[in-house]
Amino acid sequence: MKCFFDPRGVALVGATGKPMKAGYRILKNLMVGYKGLVYPVNPSYSELEGLTCYPSVLDVPAPVDLAIVFTPAPTVAQAVRDCAKRGIPGVIIQSAGFAECGDEGKALQEELKRIGRETGVRLWGPNCMGLVDGVRKHVFSFVMESIWDHGFTAGNVSLIVQSGFLAAGFLIDLMSHALMGISKACSIGNKVDVDECDLLEYLIEDPDTAAIGLYLESIPDGRRFMDLCRASAKPIVVLKGGTTAAGAKAALSHTASLAGRGALVTGALAQVGVVEARDFYQMFDMCRTLAMFPDLPEKRRGRVAIISASGGAGIVASDLVEQAGLELADLSPATRETLTTLYPEWMPVANPVDLYPAIERHGPKAYTEAFKAVCEDPNVDAVLFHVIALGIFNERFSFLADAVRSSGKPAFCWLMGLREEVADIQKEAAKEGIPVFRELSRTVECLAALLKRPRAGVLVGSEASQHGRIDLRGELDSVLRTEGGTLDEHVSKRILGACGIPVVEETLVSSGDEVVRAAKAFGFPVVMKGLQPGKIHKTELGLVRLGIASDREAVEQFEDLKRAMDGKGTVLVQQQIRGELELIVGLVRDQQFGPAVMLGFGGVMAEVLGEPVFAVAPLSEAEALRLIDSVKPHKLLEGFRGASPVDREALAQILIRVGELGCAYPRVREVDINPLIVRQGRPVAVDASVILSDVGE
Amino acid sequence: MKCFFDPRGVALVGATGKPMKAGYRILKNLMVGYKGLVYPVNPSYSELEGLTCYPSVLDVPAPVDLAIVFTPAPTVAQAVRDCAKRGIPGVIIQSAGFAECGDEGKALQEELKRIGRETGVRLWGPNCMGLVDGVRKHVFSFVMESIWDHGFTAGNVSLIVQSGFLAAGFLIDLMSHALMGISKACSIGNKVDVDECDLLEYLIEDPDTAAIGLYLESIPDGRRFMDLCRASAKPIVVLKGGTTAAGAKAALSHTASLAGRGALVTGALAQVGVVEARDFYQMFDMCRTLAMFPDLPEKRRGRVAIISASGGAGIVASDLVEQAGLELADLSPATRETLTTLYPEWMPVANPVDLYPAIERHGPKAYTEAFKAVCEDPNVDAVLFHVIALGIFNERFSFLADAVRSSGKPAFCWLMGLREEVADIQKEAAKEGIPVFRELSRTVECLAALLKRPRAGVLVGSEASQHGRIDLRGELDSVLRTEGGTLDEHVSKRILGACGIPVVEETLVSSGDEVVRAAKAFGFPVVMKGLQPGKIHKTELGLVRLGIASDREAVEQFEDLKRAMDGKGTVLVQQQIRGELELIVGLVRDQQFGPAVMLGFGGVMAEVLGEPVFAVAPLSEAEALRLIDSVKPHKLLEGFRGASPVDREALAQILIRVGELGCAYPRVREVDINPLIVRQGRPVAVDASVILSDVGE
Repeated sequence: MKCFFDPRGVALVGATGKPMKAGYRILKNLMVGYKGLVYPVNPSYSELEGLTCYPSVLDVPAPVDLAIVFTPAPTVAQAVRDCAKRGIPGVIIQSAGFAECGDEGKALQEELKRIGRETGVRLWGPNCMGLVDGVRKHVFSFVMESIWDHGFTAGNVSLIVQSGFLAAGFLIDLMSHALMGISKACSIGNKVDVDECDLLEYLIEDPDTAAIGLYLESIPDGRRFMDLCRASAKPIVVLKGGTTAAGAKAALSHTASLAGRGALVTGALAQVGVVEARDFYQMFDMCRTLAMFPDLPEKRRGRVAIISASGGAGIVASDLVEQAGLELADLSPATRETLTTLYPEWMPVANPVDLYPAIERHGPKAYTEAFKAVCEDPNVDAVLFHVIALGIFNERFSFLADAVRSSGKPAFCWLMGLREEVADIQKEAAKEGIPVFRELSRTVECLAALLKRPRAGVLVGSEASQHGRIDLRGELDSVLRTEGGTLDEHVSKRILGACGIPVVEETLVSSGDEVVRAAKAFGFPVVMKGLQPGKIHKTELGLVRLGIASDREAVEQFEDLKRAMDGKGTVLVQQQIRGELELIVGLVRDQQFGPAVMLGFGGVMAEVLGEPVFAVAPLSEAEALRLIDSVKPHKLLEGFRGASPVDREALAQILIRVGELGCAYPRVREVDINPLIVRQGRPVAVDASVILSDVGE
Repeated sequence: MKCFFDPRGVALVGATGKPMKAGYRILKNLMVGYKGLVYPVNPSYSELEGLTCYPSVLDVPAPVDLAIVFTPAPTVAQAVRDCAKRGIPGVIIQSAGFAECGDEGKALQEELKRIGRETGVRLWGPNCMGLVDGVRKHVFSFVMESIWDHGFTAGNVSLIVQSGFLAAGFLIDLMSHALMGISKACSIGNKVDVDECDLLEYLIEDPDTAAIGLYLESIPDGRRFMDLCRASAKPIVVLKGGTTAAGAKAALSHTASLAGRGALVTGALAQVGVVEARDFYQMFDMCRTLAMFPDLPEKRRGRVAIISASGGAGIVASDLVEQAGLELADLSPATRETLTTLYPEWMPVANPVDLYPAIERHGPKAYTEAFKAVCEDPNVDAVLFHVIALGIFNERFSFLADAVRSSGKPAFCWLMGLREEVADIQKEAAKEGIPVFRELSRTVECLAALLKRPRAGVLVGSEASQHGRIDLRGELDSVLRTEGGTLDEHVSKRILGACGIPVVEETLVSSGDEVVRAAKAFGFPVVMKGLQPGKIHKTELGLVRLGIASDREAVEQFEDLKRAMDGKGTVLVQQQIRGELELIVGLVRDQQFGPAVMLGFGGVMAEVLGEPVFAVAPLSEAEALRLIDSVKPHKLLEGFRGASPVDREALAQILIRVGELGCAYPRVREVDINPLIVRQGRPVAVDASVILSDVGE
């Protein structure tokens, strides 16, 4: 990938001298920022902007590591072939007219893919804005030249944006509004070859990048994406378009991207420590914030101190901190003592710390003194402070920055006031490593993203999948390898049982005597079910009999079931289990992420209690436990109203096993354990089905 | 209140010539903007800034309608007395040192209250920033003179802010950043007399005000506040500080404000059509947006068309629109036809409408043409459009504005791009009545606030409380007037039954024969309960017997209950009702809002299924139905999994009656109907208690 980011020599195929054209803008952008040699290519010119223009890329002198192509779509394939012949390792194709434009364009793109595979040339694009590097000042893009007019702020945040026009819009917006410096902004377009994973891999190693933000409509290679994120020490923030039904439909219609299930994508991202954003500037704010705090103390909790010079600010900040799942720090006795000496007598010491009365009493030095005490308080993990800059705060700010620096804790500033002074403090704060926000809720969101982010390395070290694989043999193994469609309840549960998942006691019976013997062994009441090949809706077919309480009843029901099935099916007797809670555990095979485990509430409440949660298999024990912890409402798992709490370790094992089953047998398309009944805390699979790919698939 | 907003002559008690002092700033602010005569009062000066300075307010010549007082707290009372003597109808006290400062200050404030009551002078403050009027250019405040440096933008949004320093901060922030023009900003401080209700009442009638935003920590006279909001045709947005436990605690510690229960405040505000904000700039954004649309078509639904020049923008906008509870419009055949002619062949017509390919094909006129078609589409209620301003959009904007104007529909613009061009479009859009936002999620939030706001007048006309009052007589009336504490279950239900609320069939029994007779009449199984005076935890005391299925069992249980109560209590026999759903309905008496009705889920799920919802009594039928509709998860009420849907009208009647009981009998402190069982859709009160104030209270 180095050819894209640090090329020795760049050829521009489709350079032109016509000022309104993209081929001209790319040339100008190259000439302004790129330090190496630029070779315009166009048979119609011998010279362009003082540079020699070559008739073909084949004529360009060495060294040249990168070609940027902007020619009409039907001519691009030949241009790429020429680049390969010339030995150029990387090509950024910025022309449109490919897969985004109907069948003809799709065919052209397929040809590019073929050429890439055959020649080994890495292809970036087509239909993209290319690359902008704020540190090296590389603008390998037809983005408007106005990008140079605003200082072209370098920063340590890199972006990967699927949508091209949007990427350009944001870039110029962020730079012209001085909102954020940029390390690298990559517009990936149609992804014929180079995709978000390739770029992410590069940026994770890039020394100029401290945080990475991605806007994606699809994540086709979900597993590689997750592996990269999991191994990254750098914070990664993803805004995933198409998380709702309406958005997914729009994504499908726009780029034919399969947006996937929102809840599954959310689960997969959370699993590998990615911060999920829901809006664009929110993503940028989170990136710039997280980039400021590469290292944080190992043990940190969400104990926040709020400092304000206005009661109202402290109150609303408290509301938002609580809503974000952070907690207000309980100030230490030493801090309380300091505040008591600064406060007027009538004023109680509390968090939020309202310093206005202290400032009134002792002047602004009270502010810095109190600020320092709070920052250094061992009970405080992070500080959120409010500054109203009305011509009085400017010079104070460096004192605050000193206190923050010496405490080593993150301090976030919510800032309002006079425009000029606000701008000054913003600049000063950026230098001092204090993130500044103009909106209180955004301040709290970013603080929560920082404090709740798993520590770098945690996800890799302790949680790498160390568990044993499923290793079935004999009949069940052969069923999973050769059969197709929905397996019956009994076979399904035998498979789950063989995987180590607790299942209800049950047995197939073929006579009244066997029924009575089984029922006696399990203890009354028992359940009896008629199983018929290919018929899964047993309840609807009247083939489920509950609460059978006596020998006589058992025999009657057995005969009745046999009659109802015309002697064609088998009869299953099982223990009737009453529990305090019904769960659903499942396996789905996602197009982007592969086998994923699902956990939700079952029974009557299934549809009421919100979305199930997902994690991608295989799961480590820690991942399985985290999945359990993410279920809402969580109270139901905690031993609600006298019930036993769910045995988390036992449930985690079930989730792990179900995931391993999916990983070990690719023909397992779906597993549904419904219900998984929790009795005295222990989960047991009571009904289940394993669904295989159709035979021949 | 006119004396505050349009005074003939203003006296400033505590004027000074020392530039850093508030008494100097107020004077300068008065002299810059106020057109009438200003009379500085301070015995130490004979002249100040070229004006005659008077030794006492008694010496000030007529006419003078307003005095602003900024002198040390202990001297304020005398100053106010002098104002009264001089016949000045209104005083704004900006000095601090009152109820916010411990017991001494509280005493001083009590004295002011007394003087106000005795003399009839209206008192605003103390401990406030006073009033800023952007239209009349009145700055009756010690706010920094820098407020004048930034054009002092007049607008049609008025603000009422409890917190003083915050009010000043926002004012200067909004003006210096040109974020919003202001009509009137009122900082109300300690509210010794003039409060949010007085100001709201004035602003609702104020011709310069189109929308009102309030930041409040408490709403002591909740009922008056609601009545004002209900009758207001102008949109009102409230940010209520202290909605969470942490925030409420902070509010209590800050201003000793009782923040009240968050869910109850939310319910009360929704009931009268107030938009609730959760952050400050969000409140300002909502205010400036709603102020732009005083009239909207009577019938409007949330059908939104999204227009973008980038697929990604359309996708994320779709996600946010769905999450906000709005819907994507289904474009009409005519619009689809227009778009088909503009789109390239390969591109399907859909909403979100992505116009980039059309612009590429036909130039920018495709944008205006498509834009016009979408705006005029009868299936579209509102338009959300995305503008990326990169030097190409500026001149187009007026065409778009034309299309919006002629459609008469709200169109919201999400804007990004070059700083200068963004600023130009913002100005142009403000003139054209198109709200512009820099953040997509904020765009959608404000659009939702507009489209979901009840139409002006709806809340008054059709929903004024027309229902009959509760009119109990005889024994039950006397119980409610004279007894105290918790009434027993049977008496409580007799009261509810007399109010017209369906209650379970039950009767008190005093012998085995009576038990059998009652059980036969109700049908087995029955429930039997032992009632003892003052003992409400029947279940915990073992005094509830369920599922009694035979005569013999009934007699046994009766004897056993008598024994268990040592012959001291009475025994109640009732029908045992099994239903598909358990609800809780209650009445609470809130310190700010008075009697309020509560509705939530009961039984095992009560603590799991989130917060109950509240509305302030008395309820009209429409209000009761809206309360029912606000319960979440709502699916449970809709006839979930084969159950009958809850009879909304019957449930509404119960809510209305419970509310009326609270209104008619002020000694009713609390009502708990738990459970209210829903059987075949019909709700029946199965257990209940009415709690009265203690005798003598």
